[in-house]
Amino acid sequence: MPRVSQDHMDARRYQILTGTRDCFAEYGFEGATVRRLEEATGLSRGAIFHHFDDKDALFLALAHEDAAAMAQTVSEQGLVQVMREILADPQEFSWLGTRLEIARRIRTDPAFRERWTDRQTELDEAVIARVREQQESGRMRTDIPEDVLRVYLNIVLDGLITHLATGRGTEHVNAMLDLVEASLRTA
Amino acid sequence: MPRVSQDHMDARRYQILTGTRDCFAEYGFEGATVRRLEEATGLSRGAIFHHFDDKDALFLALAHEDAAAMAQTVSEQGLVQVMREILADPQEFSWLGTRLEIARRIRTDPAFRERWTDRQTELDEAVIARVREQQESGRMRTDIPEDVLRVYLNIVLDGLITHLATGRGTEHVNAMLDLVEASLRTA
Repeated sequence: MPRVSQDHMDARRYQILTGTRDCFAEYGFEGATVRRLEEATGLSRGAIFHHFDDKDALFLALAHEDAAAMAQTVSEQGLVQVMREILADPQEFSWLGTRLEIARRIRTDPAFRERWTDRQTELDEAVIARVREQQESGRMRTDIPEDVLRVYLNIVLDGLITHLATGRGTEHVNAMLDLVEASLRTA
Repeated sequence: MPRVSQDHMDARRYQILTGTRDCFAEYGFEGATVRRLEEATGLSRGAIFHHFDDKDALFLALAHEDAAAMAQTVSEQGLVQVMREILADPQEFSWLGTRLEIARRIRTDPAFRERWTDRQTELDEAVIARVREQQESGRMRTDIPEDVLRVYLNIVLDGLITHLATGRGTEHVNAMLDLVEASLRTA
């Protein structure tokens, strides 16, 4: 039997995550059944769950990918830029709405919550680092504690995801983000 | 057979809505099965569905109650005050998280969405009326269009609900609301 190369493993993993993301976006967390995951990835359940323990692990891997990509954008351009990118291509980010469906589970299932929180910490840390850097460079107001600014930015992001996920559309949202940016700026 | 009085009908309706609200808060929209609705209200399914067509109708009646109560607070004290009240008693408002679970349905089920939107219009109108009144009295900035301010306030409310529903806690949130209020105030 040939040895499976790391490249092949990575490619397979990528194939699974991409298909899974589309499947969650279309059917939601509950609706993304194993059969649908098979169809969306073009792989058997055996192949899928060789790479990921279960559906939770798949979901959390996607959340981790997102958090890492967002953290990268945050460190270069801030969380408002993340929101502008979501707004520029809501379809691409439509799977984000899936996290609303698991809000109850995050709150009530301690093991799942811990795994979820691990993945969000990276983003929180990037937001705090960016806030500090902007405050030190004199671009962001310093009269508000950094934790308050972090909570503010996170709440606006959560609100934007909910707004788009409930089909309220993108109208006025860029102007709203201008207002958010202005409220953070040094007077 | 005795004629059922309007008072009796109203009391029964109140009993159903109160029990249903607790049941949705505890088990979520999907988890609030007919059996659990019976337990939570102390009534048979026959009695419950004599007053409401189905579970959707129950859910939308609760959303309507909320929207009406929020609209009342908005017209007197503004949407930020609604958020402060949610924050002061998150348990009382924990059923609000249920609406996150139905985000996909709102987006993808046109009939349900229409019924949902009807109930939100009242709140939107109250927010716009309050914004206008505050702008005219010189307390709220007038350099930002009222629709942008409405979207801003709605997104912060949605974000707050998501924040609490995912168990992120109330820390720093009142200070965040101070920041939101300051960002709306005339300079």
